Amino acid sequence: MIESPKVHKILYGGDYNPEQWPEEVWQEDMRLLPKAHVDTMTINVFNWAKLQPSEGEYNFSELDKIMEMLKENHFNVCLATSSAAHPAWMAKRYPDILRVDFEGRKRKFGMRHNSCPNSPTYKKYSVKLAAELAKRYKDFDHIVAWHISNEYGGECYCDNCSNAFRVWLKEKYKTIENVNKVWNTSFWGHTFYDWDEIVPPNILSEHFGYNRTTFQGISLDYARFNSDSLLECYKDEYKVIKEITPNIPITTNFMGLYKPLDYQKWAPYLDFISWDNYPSNDDPYSRTAMSHDLMRGLKKGMPFALMEQTPSVTNWLPYNALKRPGVMRLWSYQAVAHGADTVMFFQMRRSIGACEKYHGAVIDHAGHENTRVFRECAELGQELDLLGDKLLGSRVKSDIAILFDWDNWWAIEYSAGPSADLKYQTQIHHYYQVLFNENYNVDLISVNDDFDQYKLIIAPSLYMVKEGVDQKLEKFVNNGGTFLTTFFSGYVDEHDLVQAGGYPGKLSELLGIWVEETDALPVQQCNEIIEQEQSYSCNLLFDIIHLQGAEAVASYGEDFYAGIPVVTKNTFGEGAAWYVGSNPEEGYLSKLLKNICHDAGIEPILPASEGIEVSRRVKGESQYTFILNHNDLPKKLVLDQPYRDLLNNKEYANGEEIVLSPKDVLILENL
Amino acid sequence: MIESPKVHKILYGGDYNPEQWPEEVWQEDMRLLPKAHVDTMTINVFNWAKLQPSEGEYNFSELDKIMEMLKENHFNVCLATSSAAHPAWMAKRYPDILRVDFEGRKRKFGMRHNSCPNSPTYKKYSVKLAAELAKRYKDFDHIVAWHISNEYGGECYCDNCSNAFRVWLKEKYKTIENVNKVWNTSFWGHTFYDWDEIVPPNILSEHFGYNRTTFQGISLDYARFNSDSLLECYKDEYKVIKEITPNIPITTNFMGLYKPLDYQKWAPYLDFISWDNYPSNDDPYSRTAMSHDLMRGLKKGMPFALMEQTPSVTNWLPYNALKRPGVMRLWSYQAVAHGADTVMFFQMRRSIGACEKYHGAVIDHAGHENTRVFRECAELGQELDLLGDKLLGSRVKSDIAILFDWDNWWAIEYSAGPSADLKYQTQIHHYYQVLFNENYNVDLISVNDDFDQYKLIIAPSLYMVKEGVDQKLEKFVNNGGTFLTTFFSGYVDEHDLVQAGGYPGKLSELLGIWVEETDALPVQQCNEIIEQEQSYSCNLLFDIIHLQGAEAVASYGEDFYAGIPVVTKNTFGEGAAWYVGSNPEEGYLSKLLKNICHDAGIEPILPASEGIEVSRRVKGESQYTFILNHNDLPKKLVLDQPYRDLLNNKEYANGEEIVLSPKDVLILENL
Amino acid sequence: MIESPKVHKILYGGDYNPEQWPEEVWQEDMRLLPKAHVDTMTINVFNWAKLQPSEGEYNFSELDKIMEMLKENHFNVCLATSSAAHPAWMAKRYPDILRVDFEGRKRKFGMRHNSCPNSPTYKKYSVKLAAELAKRYKDFDHIVAWHISNEYGGECYCDNCSNAFRVWLKEKYKTIENVNKVWNTSFWGHTFYDWDEIVPPNILSEHFGYNRTTFQGISLDYARFNSDSLLECYKDEYKVIKEITPNIPITTNFMGLYKPLDYQKWAPYLDFISWDNYPSNDDPYSRTAMSHDLMRGLKKGMPFALMEQTPSVTNWLPYNALKRPGVMRLWSYQAVAHGADTVMFFQMRRSIGACEKYHGAVIDHAGHENTRVFRECAELGQELDLLGDKLLGSRVKSDIAILFDWDNWWAIEYSAGPSADLKYQTQIHHYYQVLFNENYNVDLISVNDDFDQYKLIIAPSLYMVKEGVDQKLEKFVNNGGTFLTTFFSGYVDEHDLVQAGGYPGKLSELLGIWVEETDALPVQQCNEIIEQEQSYSCNLLFDIIHLQGAEAVASYGEDFYAGIPVVTKNTFGEGAAWYVGSNPEEGYLSKLLKNICHDAGIEPILPASEGIEVSRRVKGESQYTFILNHNDLPKKLVLDQPYRDLLNNKEYANGEEIVLSPKDVLILENL
Repeated sequence: MIESPKVHKILYGGDYNPEQWPEEVWQEDMRLLPKAHVDTMTINVFNWAKLQPSEGEYNFSELDKIMEMLKENHFNVCLATSSAAHPAWMAKRYPDILRVDFEGRKRKFGMRHNSCPNSPTYKKYSVKLAAELAKRYKDFDHIVAWHISNEYGGECYCDNCSNAFRVWLKEKYKTIENVNKVWNTSFWGHTFYDWDEIVPPNILSEHFGYNRTTFQGISLDYARFNSDSLLECYKDEYKVIKEITPNIPITTNFMGLYKPLDYQKWAPYLDFISWDNYPSNDDPYSRTAMSHDLMRGLKKGMPFALMEQTPSVTNWLPYNALKRPGVMRLWSYQAVAHGADTVMFFQMRRSIGACEKYHGAVIDHAGHENTRVFRECAELGQELDLLGDKLLGSRVKSDIAILFDWDNWWAIEYSAGPSADLKYQTQIHHYYQVLFNENYNVDLISVNDDFDQYKLIIAPSLYMVKEGVDQKLEKFVNNGGTFLTTFFSGYVDEHDLVQAGGYPGKLSELLGIWVEETDALPVQQCNEIIEQEQSYSCNLLFDIIHLQGAEAVASYGEDFYAGIPVVTKNTFGEGAAWYVGSNPEEGYLSKLLKNICHDAGIEPILPASEGIEVSRRVKGESQYTFILNHNDLPKKLVLDQPYRDLLNNKEYANGEEIVLSPKDVLILENL
Repeated sequence: MIESPKVHKILYGGDYNPEQWPEEVWQEDMRLLPKAHVDTMTINVFNWAKLQPSEGEYNFSELDKIMEMLKENHFNVCLATSSAAHPAWMAKRYPDILRVDFEGRKRKFGMRHNSCPNSPTYKKYSVKLAAELAKRYKDFDHIVAWHISNEYGGECYCDNCSNAFRVWLKEKYKTIENVNKVWNTSFWGHTFYDWDEIVPPNILSEHFGYNRTTFQGISLDYARFNSDSLLECYKDEYKVIKEITPNIPITTNFMGLYKPLDYQKWAPYLDFISWDNYPSNDDPYSRTAMSHDLMRGLKKGMPFALMEQTPSVTNWLPYNALKRPGVMRLWSYQAVAHGADTVMFFQMRRSIGACEKYHGAVIDHAGHENTRVFRECAELGQELDLLGDKLLGSRVKSDIAILFDWDNWWAIEYSAGPSADLKYQTQIHHYYQVLFNENYNVDLISVNDDFDQYKLIIAPSLYMVKEGVDQKLEKFVNNGGTFLTTFFSGYVDEHDLVQAGGYPGKLSELLGIWVEETDALPVQQCNEIIEQEQSYSCNLLFDIIHLQGAEAVASYGEDFYAGIPVVTKNTFGEGAAWYVGSNPEEGYLSKLLKNICHDAGIEPILPASEGIEVSRRVKGESQYTFILNHNDLPKKLVLDQPYRDLLNNKEYANGEEIVLSPKDVLILENL
Repeated sequence: MIESPKVHKILYGGDYNPEQWPEEVWQEDMRLLPKAHVDTMTINVFNWAKLQPSEGEYNFSELDKIMEMLKENHFNVCLATSSAAHPAWMAKRYPDILRVDFEGRKRKFGMRHNSCPNSPTYKKYSVKLAAELAKRYKDFDHIVAWHISNEYGGECYCDNCSNAFRVWLKEKYKTIENVNKVWNTSFWGHTFYDWDEIVPPNILSEHFGYNRTTFQGISLDYARFNSDSLLECYKDEYKVIKEITPNIPITTNFMGLYKPLDYQKWAPYLDFISWDNYPSNDDPYSRTAMSHDLMRGLKKGMPFALMEQTPSVTNWLPYNALKRPGVMRLWSYQAVAHGADTVMFFQMRRSIGACEKYHGAVIDHAGHENTRVFRECAELGQELDLLGDKLLGSRVKSDIAILFDWDNWWAIEYSAGPSADLKYQTQIHHYYQVLFNENYNVDLISVNDDFDQYKLIIAPSLYMVKEGVDQKLEKFVNNGGTFLTTFFSGYVDEHDLVQAGGYPGKLSELLGIWVEETDALPVQQCNEIIEQEQSYSCNLLFDIIHLQGAEAVASYGEDFYAGIPVVTKNTFGEGAAWYVGSNPEEGYLSKLLKNICHDAGIEPILPASEGIEVSRRVKGESQYTFILNHNDLPKKLVLDQPYRDLLNNKEYANGEEIVLSPKDVLILENL
């Protein structure tokens, strides 16, 4: 939630790059954008080269004009700091700012996100620019937020990073002996005697692929170090801006399920979360919903900003299909349904040159308002105006949490074995989707978050069990909570060192099982899950489970482990701990999770209906139930209580049957 | 056409590399090659290291012997300059001659086409060698042509090229401000303040793939610069040779649809066009025909030289299938049918070592003449002897031109969006093939060529509309011509900057339409073209068209743009301008183009017959109609007028039914 | 065969890495491993960094303890020299030890097999370490063998290697003129005038892919040089150890069909062959058998050591499936059936960190003996104890040899043309498998081995015919032997220079044929082999054969070479020489080879039965017939003579029908 006196409604607008256009176009923008009901502009995202034309010189004259113009035209500003792409002159004069890539190649000037995070030049001048901007514009009260850099990402492997990595390690591990221990360097004789012997893990050292490493410990620590290095850059800018404008909230735009950055570690340093939502053509909409829920979970459920989405097409997919009529509105409300308090686009006007010129925009190359895309934007803008502050600050409430952990993500996918097809995201989504389809609200939380507010915690492939997490889970179940985890859980500590004594390691007692072996087969080779004489399919991994207190809920139907338990339940204190030892088909999972939810006292918001998404936000006594029709056909629904639809102000009676048009949305307030 | 007093027939022969063999083998060659009716040898293609064994030393003794021997044995010589592969000693002494590749790696000595085109060493010594050769052999009157270097190609990204690129830019754009403008560097903050800040676009700077760039403008200019750099090398050799032997024509061998070199820009500097024809196993023969037509079009229809083809197999394909009996003859005449005045092979004798030792040759490793391949070569040679000068200098006449433009090729395939499957060549061939199958002669011409001699001009995906081309097209149509273009046309100017105001930009008035949006879907996802209640399939891109003067000829059958026009026709002055907004199946295109041709007063040479290729060359009053049977079965044909077959001297009456054997050829002179 | 007074049984055990564990775990190992009947440990494989913590310092205290402990606990030791991974400090201080990879990149510290074989630092310190180890432990009489380094492999392209390559060339070819001749450098003008102009062939010079080169001669010599360079490293260690411990046999562990090292050239320098057997999930078990036979053939049939296999899973496959119950035992006996005198595992205890932590081990992460894997290991260990020295030193006897040649492997797969699908291993296995399935014992031998002991020699694609091999084969056939070879044979000499005069070159007289041309088609495009009106399928390559003394056995059924011979037989002296000019389906080959064997007086050990493998070892009068059931179902067999089963001591009568359980094994001694 953007805590600003300027914010009285769902902010609507997005990236605006007038510096790419002659001033006569600006005037036309000022005519057109109010027609689209745009109220907020993200500006100055890639402007460093113009703001600082040479080492000793800053030039804000154009930005001054833009700021004045936006102020005069009553637009809010989300002011970016332009540090996402360094100037060409800087790259030439100070090559330390250029990254060394995963292949060990020193890069030249080009692209964006191109600065080494441990470059002294970058750190000095990005912070200086942020300070200059803050000082210059601190009194422009139309700034609703700062937007530091843009979509931080990527990695660097240069000598400055190597040195910084050694310092980072020294701070974390104190002695080289500790490093040797946590990286298990006695394997393959990698014992280090001096910090300087350590080199970054890439294709020239320990890696034989981006995700394939011979020393997981080094690679894992480098992933952490790299995420931390970029976070430091963010924090440096944050600090200097905050000192100057303490009352303007600060963010940077995240990218949802972006693996290289541990957003859970970043989140405390953002005043609010914002993110850019660009699903691919074949992403199911449940994956988008999951990303929203993950982003919302970063700050304990606080509403977030949808910072970017395309009004029509992207340009970077192999096939850049149009968002069909109504889809942009539908997906915008999907974001709101999951906790967004803004609806923003990239971008206001389509550029005419370089790689994003065929990315969609509110104003197309045609240059006028008579386009389908502009009309859809304007209609949505008008609706958001009417919604006012009704939804602002409302929260999604959920009895179910799925644990999501970046370290675990890295560690699982760096793992050599058991299966190349084991992907953390896919496992998380497999469980999420089943709950989503059944209309349960779900939170995606960190292992450090509070567990007590939930009735059910699901942790697919909780491979890495960090210090204390096993006790937290035991306490949670002991107190009556229900816990479910799956194959490849409990194996390692935070250094990816195996917890000896048998899998699932520190979770063994809680789960009441011992997993002796795990079979891994190509995904088309299935086994059966037999439960009460019903047979379901499963694949991927196949744990061979011994019961040590748990009861068998279902067993394998085939292979030499036929009859061996595959799903188990362990009563533990007041609660229960479930284990799913293979990858079940959705039908089984759906049945299983519905039963578990029911036993845990959790009920869905509404009965499930294919292609209909349901989510609920709550503010005080008010409940806002979002019903979204993702189908291409109209859908009949029967309501479970009296409601008023915020979008058309119509009231519905309990039990009333309504027909929801294709791609249409209801926001029902309880009466 | 090779303007030489030595040329009285279709030259027959090809590459000959005696320097790879002991002299006793030369004598055997002199016995064998006349048996194959070979009359022309391309020699000295890769001989630099032997001709210049060290920096200050030239040694022509072996080449002298070869020249003498060929002269004594009455062979014409096409004398190459050997600059296609530099000597190893030169690479060691002057590393500036070694290229830096797309990955930014300095290469070592190896392969061929290995010299940096902006290397001072290369420029100095390649020109010096050409001069030495010209001076030494200027009085050998059996030289019919000079052959500079060999198959120029590839790219370099070294520091010398970087500097040369900056000079090239400075000449073209004068000021850095102009560069910033045409490359739209304000996008992503890439503003340059000094020429030296500009670095070549490759994987270390703006590219994330060979064809994927974040700044199309830079990449496009580098493609032009690279083509120009190689052209300069060619021109430097040309100039020095021309001064010494002003009467010997000069060429270099092109490679057909070779993307890195803008052959249209090269062509003026060649005295005649020559090219190497190596179709892949799965290339349709229409693609070969199209390549011939493109090569012929480079110099306004002037006959060209087929410089290389294999007599039997290639060696570099995954599966090097034999040319079936008769196919080498058939394809040789295909070249002649499309304007070749020579039939040449790579090579005379199969080498015994290195990577081309399994490439076909007239003389096989067996070493004697008792092979199928030798016999087929000898039989063709004999036929060409009999044809004499009959066809020399005759021209292919066409009422139809397809526009082909290298800048457009580069720009379309650098484009980020709309579809990764949009390939310029494929689009050109899609339209070419339909006309080819219907027996229309077609010219492939540049946008700078004269339009007035044509009745129909087709420009598939004329994405880039260069300065003046729109007016030329308007004038052409206004004067009664027919023009057809397709999706992704009219978007950008020569800098790949979008023409704002709506697609198809500067072609909008001519076409009478506005394309509001373009949908892009995987190619297996089709829509329908509905014309007069008939339905045809289309895929790839789907323009959403508004009529602004044009009439709808056909509409979409499905999706949210069902009923929207997909094919339109605009009457403009005396002519008509057609637009095809999606990628139609061949059946639709065939029907459409036949109707358009008919309306434009263009008729095919002969009625279409499957697997039968027809082309016509004209000299004065004489018409030479080539009929080629690509089928594996005999084919019946009914002749439309009295003819005499040049190959067997038989005469045919009007309406006579003849049977053409599999792979057989007729060259019919009108009576 | 390990010639050691300590060896009285099939050694059982494998890699043991106590240096990765605290000492309390060692004690537990000493309790557990005897329960598994382990008697032999390979230790000290990756320990260099600990043994030599800095340049001037050696520290054997931990290794002393380990040696003492193993001695006390009555384990044999296979003592490795730890040179397979250099210490990090050494890489930092002496970067010459780091390799330059195929892409030309200088590597940093990381992985294993990471030392440049021509690094002065590596050569100095690896030998010094070996000497230190030998001196220190020479009196520990529980050492049964030395294990130098580990799985030698990979390539280096650094400047030291470049220089060493030039020296290697100078020794081999004496003059640069000879190099130019054997590499055919006049092709593409590559003539060298000085040794220093030669650079290693990699992606920066002659290669455009790991197996794609423009100069086969250079690439072939570099492959030889690289194999020799690593062999020199091995020999240096061997020499210093042998001087100190002349009575302890020395080996290094090979990797079966490992292409980069010419094991036939290495074998003389090993006291016995040892190798690591890691089949992939989809390798047929006949391929494993073939690898064993190849390894056995390296030292003229001398029994070898199975140095490594996994007791359960690997960790580096995409899908690491469990070895099903019984499979580890089955495959262990398969090794013994083919000549192994040891059964060893990687490894004793599963590590807890780095990339092999999910590789199977005798002792799992669970840490105790109550696992399926431990039980199976213990049961096998007990069986091996009971077998005692019965099988030790027995030999596999075969009337059939398949020629296998590393130079030929390299040359075939460097070849540009005729077909990218022609793989040497696949061709070898195609012929091997047919014989294997029919229960013939087969030797895989070198072209330098003795031919006279065989009745049938098969040489699929004997592309390279080295000096004298043609005469050896002619003598073999002349004396009554039967020889069979196939397409792409007889083309080149040892420099990959084509033998002019027609294929199959120096084998032409022996085979009585001339292969005029070879067609190459994608493998799904088949032709027919017609023999006595029966039709069989063939694909890949299609030789067009002229009979020159041979008789046609079968002919093509289709295409323009229908009716042309495809299989021929030439009577030559007392014997016969067969030629197969295409790639036949298994059914044809099976029929053909059975007939050929029968005519040559070779009969299978037992009649074929699906999924049943049969092999026989012989010692004096005793025959040991191994029968292995690879099926998942029981299999009935009828015995052909009276036997006693060594594993259960049961006796069987002639003609007795027995039922072999799934995955079960019989070792039948003749009575």
